[in-house]
Amino acid sequence: MKAVVMRDKQLLVDTLKAPTPAAGEVLVKTLACGICGSDLHMFHHCEHVLGNFKRSGIPVDFDAGQDVVFGHEFCGEILDHGPGSDKQLKVGTRVCSMPFIFNRNGFEHVGFSNGYPGGYGEQMLLAEGLLVPVPGDLPAHLAALTEPMSVAVHAVNRARLEGDEVPIVIGCGPIGLAMIAVLKSRGIGPVVASDFSPKRRALAEKMGADLVVNPAEQSPYQSWVEVAAPAGYDIKGPQAMYGLGPQPKPCVIFECVGIPGLIQQVLQSAPPRSRLMVVGVCMESDRIEPMVGIAKEMNISFAYGYNGEEFARTLYDLAEQKFDASPLITSTVGLDGVAEAFAALSKPDEQAKVMITFE
Amino acid sequence: MKAVVMRDKQLLVDTLKAPTPAAGEVLVKTLACGICGSDLHMFHHCEHVLGNFKRSGIPVDFDAGQDVVFGHEFCGEILDHGPGSDKQLKVGTRVCSMPFIFNRNGFEHVGFSNGYPGGYGEQMLLAEGLLVPVPGDLPAHLAALTEPMSVAVHAVNRARLEGDEVPIVIGCGPIGLAMIAVLKSRGIGPVVASDFSPKRRALAEKMGADLVVNPAEQSPYQSWVEVAAPAGYDIKGPQAMYGLGPQPKPCVIFECVGIPGLIQQVLQSAPPRSRLMVVGVCMESDRIEPMVGIAKEMNISFAYGYNGEEFARTLYDLAEQKFDASPLITSTVGLDGVAEAFAALSKPDEQAKVMITFE
Repeated sequence: MKAVVMRDKQLLVDTLKAPTPAAGEVLVKTLACGICGSDLHMFHHCEHVLGNFKRSGIPVDFDAGQDVVFGHEFCGEILDHGPGSDKQLKVGTRVCSMPFIFNRNGFEHVGFSNGYPGGYGEQMLLAEGLLVPVPGDLPAHLAALTEPMSVAVHAVNRARLEGDEVPIVIGCGPIGLAMIAVLKSRGIGPVVASDFSPKRRALAEKMGADLVVNPAEQSPYQSWVEVAAPAGYDIKGPQAMYGLGPQPKPCVIFECVGIPGLIQQVLQSAPPRSRLMVVGVCMESDRIEPMVGIAKEMNISFAYGYNGEEFARTLYDLAEQKFDASPLITSTVGLDGVAEAFAALSKPDEQAKVMITFE
Repeated sequence: MKAVVMRDKQLLVDTLKAPTPAAGEVLVKTLACGICGSDLHMFHHCEHVLGNFKRSGIPVDFDAGQDVVFGHEFCGEILDHGPGSDKQLKVGTRVCSMPFIFNRNGFEHVGFSNGYPGGYGEQMLLAEGLLVPVPGDLPAHLAALTEPMSVAVHAVNRARLEGDEVPIVIGCGPIGLAMIAVLKSRGIGPVVASDFSPKRRALAEKMGADLVVNPAEQSPYQSWVEVAAPAGYDIKGPQAMYGLGPQPKPCVIFECVGIPGLIQQVLQSAPPRSRLMVVGVCMESDRIEPMVGIAKEMNISFAYGYNGEEFARTLYDLAEQKFDASPLITSTVGLDGVAEAFAALSKPDEQAKVMITFE
């Protein structure tokens, strides 16, 4: 099969041996696969990221000296079943799946593995028990957005919103954009969104954000005050600091950037007693000033991944058009265009989600 | 009046002019005042702490070049009322108060102010509107514990416990000990407590902690597993990381140390999906690995201070013996013994709360 391979710290298109499904696995033909920021991270800082995963207890591991085929945001079509299958989902069924395999050797992450090539290749092995059939005629490139959308769904679920919150989405990359769509689909808002990039701000508006700001010109927290706080409310004043007099609606910040310094920036700038949901995966060590968090009695929650129910529900919600994720996709490439797309994605202004399709 | 004064970076006993109550203020005779860790911090790192307060939006400020009389954990007796008072609380009434003054110049923190000497002096000015009369015959030195106990009450309130949590108290100084008492009084437990100091571990037991560990010998999280988790549960195993199979009771950690590194230590060592309440006031910059928090979906809440209702309720609870705070007091000194007590308190093994009394 044809695949984009990470080999010798480069991305090459090569022809690999097609994989064979073991018991409990199916062979699928890849129909579409998104390029994820984690793929870029892994490509540019492989040892560092793997070391970080190991220290953090995330069981994603592979030998960077051997071939790896990225891609964990995919939609495929069943080609064959491994031995012992009752074939409940027939050959030809279009499916999505959480990118996980649990076999006798333990856990493998499809797309971050030497044994389980991801959706940057023409064929993949998936866990039969994790397959979710794509409902109706939802196009494969939209079904492939189930994975990143699930990340946003999980973060919103974990925030346990009560309905009166006014959220701020910091960073309008694919996850930030997904967050806006999920928040809007649940009637949470107005949604304030912030990004330095004009293209991403335009996408944020398309996704339904109510107030979109360029943080170089306007503090998103100040915009938040305008829609969430009583007249005269000052984030640094005594009314805010001590909760005296009329108070604003609850502030929940979804941090979807994941670079060092962002957590402290939120602690410093957000209204007192805000809740920060850290969704951006910052792989570097970070510095905070606990005193600032203490003085403002802030709350920080870290959100990661999703569960099977959230993943399946998200695919159904995409099919039922509960939210429109299509603006996320800013371009489509074939396998031959992946290396170039990686270069383009390192400049965040140019793209949001680049989708690999197979014709 | 006689007072311990911070002057030229030293603590001296001197005779100062007695203060005069303005409108809305009362003059009290100090009966007892606790020495707080914040007083020590302020004494040893004054500019640094004031700078930190300023950056964090905490309106505590004074001129370190002028006299300051510390002391914000006090009980006093009314000597006189400022002009215009309706004297609802008569001269001779014993009172506690949150150590705050709001006057025409703004906010002043009694005990961290050039104009409002604290309980390290024989007389203080307090805000009439914030006075809470000491119920019954609660001794003044126990009433003076209202302030630090309120900090613990507020942290427990802010944790919004549902009753089934198994808490871990990290650090058994005065605040950690207060935390144990409050948790036990609410039927939360078993309470796991951890401190390097044998004397403080003995006090933790006296306060009612169910499992007291020396973290140099035994991980408090491992002790927690023994009382809160199903058999075979491994904090770093897949059952814990992915929430597979039987799960332990919720883990809430009260961090009552406040030195850099503690937050990351908890992120690293505590069970996944734990909630960390940061109660210890860390005045230094701190380093965290967000990836660890993300992988384990941790939650961090910062707790600070208390409100008027919590303060009054705590004083009543002390009077009604809802909790016994007396073990906190490990020694009693007069004003002449304060400088020496500061030296002793810099070695955390020797003391918990040192109480200043006036005979």
